[in-house]
Amino acid sequence: MNSPSTLRLFDLAGADEQRRFSPYCWRTRLALAHKGLPVQTVAWRFTDKQAIAATGQGKVPVLVDGERWIHDSWTIAEYLEDTYSDTPSLFGPGCGRALARFLNQWAAETLQPAIARVVVPDIPAILHDKDQAYFRSSREAAFGQSFEALAAQRAQALDNVRRVLAPLRSTLAAQPYLAGAQPNYADHAVFGAFQWARTASPVALLDPADPIAPWVERMLDAYGGLARGVAPAAAAAGS
Amino acid sequence: MNSPSTLRLFDLAGADEQRRFSPYCWRTRLALAHKGLPVQTVAWRFTDKQAIAATGQGKVPVLVDGERWIHDSWTIAEYLEDTYSDTPSLFGPGCGRALARFLNQWAAETLQPAIARVVVPDIPAILHDKDQAYFRSSREAAFGQSFEALAAQRAQALDNVRRVLAPLRSTLAAQPYLAGAQPNYADHAVFGAFQWARTASPVALLDPADPIAPWVERMLDAYGGLARGVAPAAAAAGS
Repeated sequence: MNSPSTLRLFDLAGADEQRRFSPYCWRTRLALAHKGLPVQTVAWRFTDKQAIAATGQGKVPVLVDGERWIHDSWTIAEYLEDTYSDTPSLFGPGCGRALARFLNQWAAETLQPAIARVVVPDIPAILHDKDQAYFRSSREAAFGQSFEALAAQRAQALDNVRRVLAPLRSTLAAQPYLAGAQPNYADHAVFGAFQWARTASPVALLDPADPIAPWVERMLDAYGGLARGVAPAAAAAGS
Repeated sequence: MNSPSTLRLFDLAGADEQRRFSPYCWRTRLALAHKGLPVQTVAWRFTDKQAIAATGQGKVPVLVDGERWIHDSWTIAEYLEDTYSDTPSLFGPGCGRALARFLNQWAAETLQPAIARVVVPDIPAILHDKDQAYFRSSREAAFGQSFEALAAQRAQALDNVRRVLAPLRSTLAAQPYLAGAQPNYADHAVFGAFQWARTASPVALLDPADPIAPWVERMLDAYGGLARGVAPAAAAAGS
């Protein structure tokens, strides 16, 4: 039997290749760490479509395991869980996987769109030059607004994020992690959104007294401080 | 050993005492059915505060088990799970209870407030006379708007509900129940909101092609068709 190949992960990066800021890639990074699976990450920019053409689509995370190319963070999580079944479980037993799917979808379809209106205008400041035009034109088309118009509505957007966070807040006021006493993929999926905001924008999403804040700190410390390894985004000069 | 006392549940009712319409009471009704625990329900109206004064608060569901009076739907669910541990589990093993708490909170803090703006103006049509003044004054104060003003914004409120439902929709497009192959308390907590809308308002929350609709039907059929036992709210005469 051959030794297992080294896993490789295409991971979104900014101009500084250490600035890894994709909420979806962070889900996968934390999932790999949870399972204790070593990974070699490859800094990838939005316009590096050719590098992941084998997946037939243009987004990361993309995981390469020997001959297999796997894309979509949820698909990767299920692949890791089912393939590396002798490592710590991402979902726990019974209904854990089914319930985690809802939290995964809530993060992607409710939380991240709300956070996007706060952080996206700050993303050009961290991007590689080759991504600037692509990012602005694709995101302004998606929002139907210029980044300048979005930035002018930031206070209301932040109020909306804090409203959207209500069920996360009351849950984490009652237990240390979404999965209970220890984190699992439900925590990875939701925390990815906070790590995105932290690494891409100097705006503080949470009031320091928010019951969500200590959970964010615990997730930054988890897995040997993996997520804390990227510094928070700096305020722009003069701001 | 004495035989167990019959459980009693104070259950919100309309003018017709068979019209049980509280989303929180439905959570408890379905949880009791899931565990196969017989219950005697007591029709309760909003102004019957004296009947549940033993709990030190004024809301239902209230479960009475022998000498114990238990209120708050989540507290009741945990009580049933821990007390009747030899009956089918409400939460499943491992992280099931912790993850269900998030879905419980999402239903209460995100979904139901959105649905309220659609259905609350219809509730006076089903209420007992003695509840009318209390219900209108307490709810209009909470919304900061008259029922007539709310009703005039119903189309936008319905659009908002359908947006809020995005993570439920994508989850239920991928699996038959929130808990996976079979329903559990995560399904009870979220379905309570749909049963509330169905029993209190003639407005259809879902487009018939919505992937959530077949799950609602399955939940109406579950536990011997318990939830289907209440007829949908009828359209007001002339509407």
